[in-house]
Amino acid sequence: MLIAGIMTGTSLDAIDVAVCDIQHKGDRHAISLVAFSTYPYADDTIAKIRAAVSEQASMQDLCDIPFALAHDYASAIRDLLVTHAIEAVAIHGQTLWHHPPVSTWQAASGSALSALLSLPVVSGFRDADVALGGQGAPLVPVFDAATLASDHDVVALNIGGMANITILPSGADSTAIRAFDTGPGNVWIDAAARITFGMSYDANGATARAGVVIRSFFDELQRLPYFAAVPPKSTGREVFSEAEARRLITRYAHPSAPLEDVLSTMTELTAWSIADHVSRYAPSTTTIIASGGGVKNSFLMERLQAHCAERGLSAVVQIHPHADAKEAMAFAYLGWCTLQGLPGNIPSVTGARAAVVLGTVARA
Amino acid sequence: MLIAGIMTGTSLDAIDVAVCDIQHKGDRHAISLVAFSTYPYADDTIAKIRAAVSEQASMQDLCDIPFALAHDYASAIRDLLVTHAIEAVAIHGQTLWHHPPVSTWQAASGSALSALLSLPVVSGFRDADVALGGQGAPLVPVFDAATLASDHDVVALNIGGMANITILPSGADSTAIRAFDTGPGNVWIDAAARITFGMSYDANGATARAGVVIRSFFDELQRLPYFAAVPPKSTGREVFSEAEARRLITRYAHPSAPLEDVLSTMTELTAWSIADHVSRYAPSTTTIIASGGGVKNSFLMERLQAHCAERGLSAVVQIHPHADAKEAMAFAYLGWCTLQGLPGNIPSVTGARAAVVLGTVARA
Repeated sequence: MLIAGIMTGTSLDAIDVAVCDIQHKGDRHAISLVAFSTYPYADDTIAKIRAAVSEQASMQDLCDIPFALAHDYASAIRDLLVTHAIEAVAIHGQTLWHHPPVSTWQAASGSALSALLSLPVVSGFRDADVALGGQGAPLVPVFDAATLASDHDVVALNIGGMANITILPSGADSTAIRAFDTGPGNVWIDAAARITFGMSYDANGATARAGVVIRSFFDELQRLPYFAAVPPKSTGREVFSEAEARRLITRYAHPSAPLEDVLSTMTELTAWSIADHVSRYAPSTTTIIASGGGVKNSFLMERLQAHCAERGLSAVVQIHPHADAKEAMAFAYLGWCTLQGLPGNIPSVTGARAAVVLGTVARA
Repeated sequence: MLIAGIMTGTSLDAIDVAVCDIQHKGDRHAISLVAFSTYPYADDTIAKIRAAVSEQASMQDLCDIPFALAHDYASAIRDLLVTHAIEAVAIHGQTLWHHPPVSTWQAASGSALSALLSLPVVSGFRDADVALGGQGAPLVPVFDAATLASDHDVVALNIGGMANITILPSGADSTAIRAFDTGPGNVWIDAAARITFGMSYDANGATARAGVVIRSFFDELQRLPYFAAVPPKSTGREVFSEAEARRLITRYAHPSAPLEDVLSTMTELTAWSIADHVSRYAPSTTTIIASGGGVKNSFLMERLQAHCAERGLSAVVQIHPHADAKEAMAFAYLGWCTLQGLPGNIPSVTGARAAVVLGTVARA
């Protein structure tokens, strides 16, 4: 089946669409990426979503958002339909609020999109897991298991704003899979780039590479309580906020020292915290397969590999073959699972009482 | 198939559940009511919904409402499952905003409810019609057509806050069906009962029956522009507001005249406006089949029959056999249509570009 997965993340930078060919292959699932494209949101859609997440939206804005997204998604899929015979669409939707284990809110009308495209649309992936007491997240591990599990111990790493890992023990069934956030991914590296040099990010880690780690700063960062906490755990911009980064940088950036050192220290923190969690919870890992925007930072990747070696891990850091498309591919796969009547959540990962078929299917 | 339809209206008075047995019968559908029960909302659910519709809800409240409703609905269905082998559930959800033809918002997580019950759940019935340029309403006409159409011309009348009619010409295909609001149903009768006597409603129309119509008042009411407007049209409490009722009553209720006359006049307005629309748009109607709370007002029913006779209509006013359960039954039927892959909207009624399969199906 040719199914398109659509991911729209909290950064609002683009609508990511991955067209995947997914087939049964014995008792496994063969998932191949056929096309990956990014499309813009309509300006008005972004304005309404920004208002919503900052608790400034009117009821009419909130009513409009799921339909505005359906129209934006429909434009993207129509463009891909010119060259690909897409048979179904799976959409993550736009997270407007997340209140696990009580509720979660991914806006987007699957029914409206199905009517616009005359294709089946799967949506609302997090609700059923939350209804069964889970966190509704992470959901990508089932895709990691289907695509990356092997006869060695593997860790799937995603470095977005936050960094998270999926631990895939060799030959394990899904009940042995664990997944959690290791801490900040790019969020504080980007914050430091803005605060020190006014850059939106440190391209390829070049600035961090030019500095050295500020030892006292790094020591304090390592003592932040999130790192010592025992999984399952998750974090976000509430904890690793720009305000907190600014406070720490103001305290530790000595006026006579190069500002590059601040970026070196923040980059070191992300690399260390990932390696530290792998060392503590998956010491026999042979391969760390990295995806997300962070993989474009070659200095970060080098520091991660160095930290693994320092603690005696034999893990080799590799870049995921579809590092950009992975999340959209994961939702294509989750949608395919729903259409096949297969569960998409992993209770050991989300904390839900049971594995269930996720989401709802519209066939307008 | 035994399918439960759940209707939760804007009055927030109860969760109405109709368990229906629906079968194919030749090229028609046989729909029978097996059980009808009403259940309370949780207090907290009502508080959050009231906050939402008055534009006072927090994002967290709005995130919680679809899950709170799923839990309330699950309790109701579990109670009915003790005695009925319900195979699927169809839910209207709670309308929080309606902005056709741009968007509409019926809160309730079908996926969460499906996970709680381990049953298929159909939800989100209005989205696809709105996405295709329709009003997303009314949706009951397809149920009226399936249950009430005959070899005579029939009108299905529902008297809730507003009154609406579905015109079902004899032997007609669905493209000949029309449906629209005729104006106020109980809304201004109830308002008058509150304003004059402090009663929440005029039980059985006893107070109106004791008065006479105030001619000048009635003349002005008949001239309200909504009545002359050409269908399709719809109205609501924005037009027929309590404030406007109060303004008119203050002007026309003479201090020396009995206050009963105010109720007589308002009751006359509802009866006249229904009969007037039937006379203008369905003059060959043989039967008006009435449902909704208004059918409990026997004086209103008598005045409606009298107005029909006055304008030479041969229409006989009958009470629908399931006057209370009708809306919940309609959503059971709409859900069944979705599960069968059959369209639920009627473009001549809603204004949508096409008939489509409505809603989304969760099978957790």
